[in-house]
Amino acid sequence: MGKLSKRVAIVGAGMSQFGRLYPLKRNPDLWVDAWIDAVKSVDNGIEPKDVDACYVGNYSSDLFNHQGHLGPQMANLVGLTPKPASRFEGACASSGIALRQAIIAVASGIHDVIAVAGVECMNELPTSLVTDALATASDALFEYPAGATFPGLYATVATAHFHKYGTTSEDLMRIGIKNHENGVENPFAQMQRSIAQMMQRKLKKLEEQGKELPDWKDEFDYLKSASNPMIAYPLRLFDCSLVTDGAACVFIAAEEVAKNYTDTPIWIAGTGQGSAALSIHDRDDLTGFIATREAARQAYEMSGYGPKDIQIAELHDCFTIAELVALEDLGFYEKGKAAQAVKEGETKRDGARPINTSGGLKSKGHPVGATGAAQAVEIFKQMRGRAERNRQVKFEVERALTHNLGGSGATCVVTIYEK
Amino acid sequence: MGKLSKRVAIVGAGMSQFGRLYPLKRNPDLWVDAWIDAVKSVDNGIEPKDVDACYVGNYSSDLFNHQGHLGPQMANLVGLTPKPASRFEGACASSGIALRQAIIAVASGIHDVIAVAGVECMNELPTSLVTDALATASDALFEYPAGATFPGLYATVATAHFHKYGTTSEDLMRIGIKNHENGVENPFAQMQRSIAQMMQRKLKKLEEQGKELPDWKDEFDYLKSASNPMIAYPLRLFDCSLVTDGAACVFIAAEEVAKNYTDTPIWIAGTGQGSAALSIHDRDDLTGFIATREAARQAYEMSGYGPKDIQIAELHDCFTIAELVALEDLGFYEKGKAAQAVKEGETKRDGARPINTSGGLKSKGHPVGATGAAQAVEIFKQMRGRAERNRQVKFEVERALTHNLGGSGATCVVTIYEK
Repeated sequence: MGKLSKRVAIVGAGMSQFGRLYPLKRNPDLWVDAWIDAVKSVDNGIEPKDVDACYVGNYSSDLFNHQGHLGPQMANLVGLTPKPASRFEGACASSGIALRQAIIAVASGIHDVIAVAGVECMNELPTSLVTDALATASDALFEYPAGATFPGLYATVATAHFHKYGTTSEDLMRIGIKNHENGVENPFAQMQRSIAQMMQRKLKKLEEQGKELPDWKDEFDYLKSASNPMIAYPLRLFDCSLVTDGAACVFIAAEEVAKNYTDTPIWIAGTGQGSAALSIHDRDDLTGFIATREAARQAYEMSGYGPKDIQIAELHDCFTIAELVALEDLGFYEKGKAAQAVKEGETKRDGARPINTSGGLKSKGHPVGATGAAQAVEIFKQMRGRAERNRQVKFEVERALTHNLGGSGATCVVTIYEK
Repeated sequence: MGKLSKRVAIVGAGMSQFGRLYPLKRNPDLWVDAWIDAVKSVDNGIEPKDVDACYVGNYSSDLFNHQGHLGPQMANLVGLTPKPASRFEGACASSGIALRQAIIAVASGIHDVIAVAGVECMNELPTSLVTDALATASDALFEYPAGATFPGLYATVATAHFHKYGTTSEDLMRIGIKNHENGVENPFAQMQRSIAQMMQRKLKKLEEQGKELPDWKDEFDYLKSASNPMIAYPLRLFDCSLVTDGAACVFIAAEEVAKNYTDTPIWIAGTGQGSAALSIHDRDDLTGFIATREAARQAYEMSGYGPKDIQIAELHDCFTIAELVALEDLGFYEKGKAAQAVKEGETKRDGARPINTSGGLKSKGHPVGATGAAQAVEIFKQMRGRAERNRQVKFEVERALTHNLGGSGATCVVTIYEK
């Protein structure tokens, strides 16, 4: 693996509202909302004439919306026709890949500025068919026909981790609680409500109905109750991310032009991508993902940084177990040690290394093909000190990381950012 | 648009058999066949350890095969795990985009060698659903629900061209006749039979059945008969390309390493990509494609060559009219003049500028996501003097071009090759 031949920066980034927005919003609407938000974030302004190409990350508008060929459609909506416009797919890492390919393309010299899009409108399908559509990112010959959809596949990873390292359901619950607490502070998030708030709401409702009140001492009791049903042991409802409609937009620029757009560009320090067999039965180890380890290795090597240098990160918490595993695969903690660190609050917004200040996929939402780009939006805001409400971290962020995972870990893109 | 920061070459290229191969062959089988054929074409050999990434072009395994996330699956089958593996989509230009992104990535310095895959297994769906699946590459809100599928959209382009330039059905038939004559000479083609041979076969069959023989003087009479039914006026069955299962593989290498693999690499002289609104009602002109003109402009500019320098080309003849329009959009002929040149035999294998020596999409077949990579395979063979049977052109090819179109012209990738 070589080095990029020139430096590349993010000069603007924004997103649409995330939520259950269909049919009021479809891919075209979501994307235009994200584009406008990103344009507003560019300090000195940006116009379609400044943008050389449109790189669209999307998992499956084919299955969700019966519309393929999103590249030229998205480009046309924001005035980029007849410039190059392509779609990039790697399951839930689709816009992580689009971001990476844009970084590579700008470094190659062929383009100076690229608009990276992440879009997915999942609620056009009923939820049962969403699970089916997502399952096509697993092995459609050996996993999916056997009844394994993603909650089941990640549950297998969780039980393996429980078995090998003594991890518990409470360890996973802490991750969900933290991410919801962050989501409260994100006006773009789908669920701007903490687990504690949801518990209180449930208690109030029961009281109003004159029902006997459960003996819940804290959120953990609530999360262990029937109010948080088991989906696939040990993963309960609140261990799973959301079905979301949303889009994000990131402007990538070459070093020669970046300063035209802002005095505070966020530089790409490293990019890495790894892959694995689609089916988890083809893997040597179920307690971690080889694709993450490979992507991290490349990104660290390119940047010259190591895990200790990373101050904040957005990790792909499609399920709570995925965040735990990522903390270990990325080298933030040794294998089997992340749960204790989470317990000690290290990954909280005021902890040693805040993780998923955006609320993560768990609370902000997970429009699968938009997630990678949306992670970059949060990092861009945090590194420029402009995160909304009360979620801006209290220190100057010099180096950050995003981790975007596809399928049950068959694709991973890791990006490292610096000031 | 900038220049690429380093030179990039093709050092190997091969393909699977094209045809109606499902269920004996599925995407994994087709891809492995293509990989093996490409490996054999590398003079000094190539191994998985030499390849840094796998770039997969595929239109919609989601809809054709209910399997997404092809990148890591294809990479795993040929021993590339855990290296980066991604899928690229731009309708029927998907592997043209994968090829272009691989060229860009190698030029960026991040990878030295990339395996470009093009794969599509269309016959897993019944033909009626294939048309439906392909129609998702048109505008799924304004075109497809109104009943417009691709034969109808290209028929609209054809009638506009007829109206404006006096083009005739015979002009289109000549293109089909030529491409089938080339396909006869391609052992990988789906239909290795000329129109004349098909006519003779039909006559023999009628004779055997003791039926009255039609008064067909030549292929044109046959093509105007009920044996060649109207699909969407003026396009008849033999104006349409085929529904095909197939894959292709192209190895892209940086200039520093290309000579390790072969003494006769084929260099990339230029790459261009253009886009247009998805729906044809949003275009100013129906007799040509703005995306092709833009892609060609970029590729000519990067290469320093013009249309006159191109000696052979593989054009995207998804319908015969598409080849005619491409001849004009690429600047090979003035608007309205290509039909006369075709009539004079200029695009035949022994003409001034042979077009689609492979047989084209019309005769070789059109596994949509594989087509762009398969076009590069033919150019690689022709430029190295190694095309099979009797289709090797009789002169030394120094410069060639491929033209890969997506949808009804909303995406176009043009690549120029030199020795």
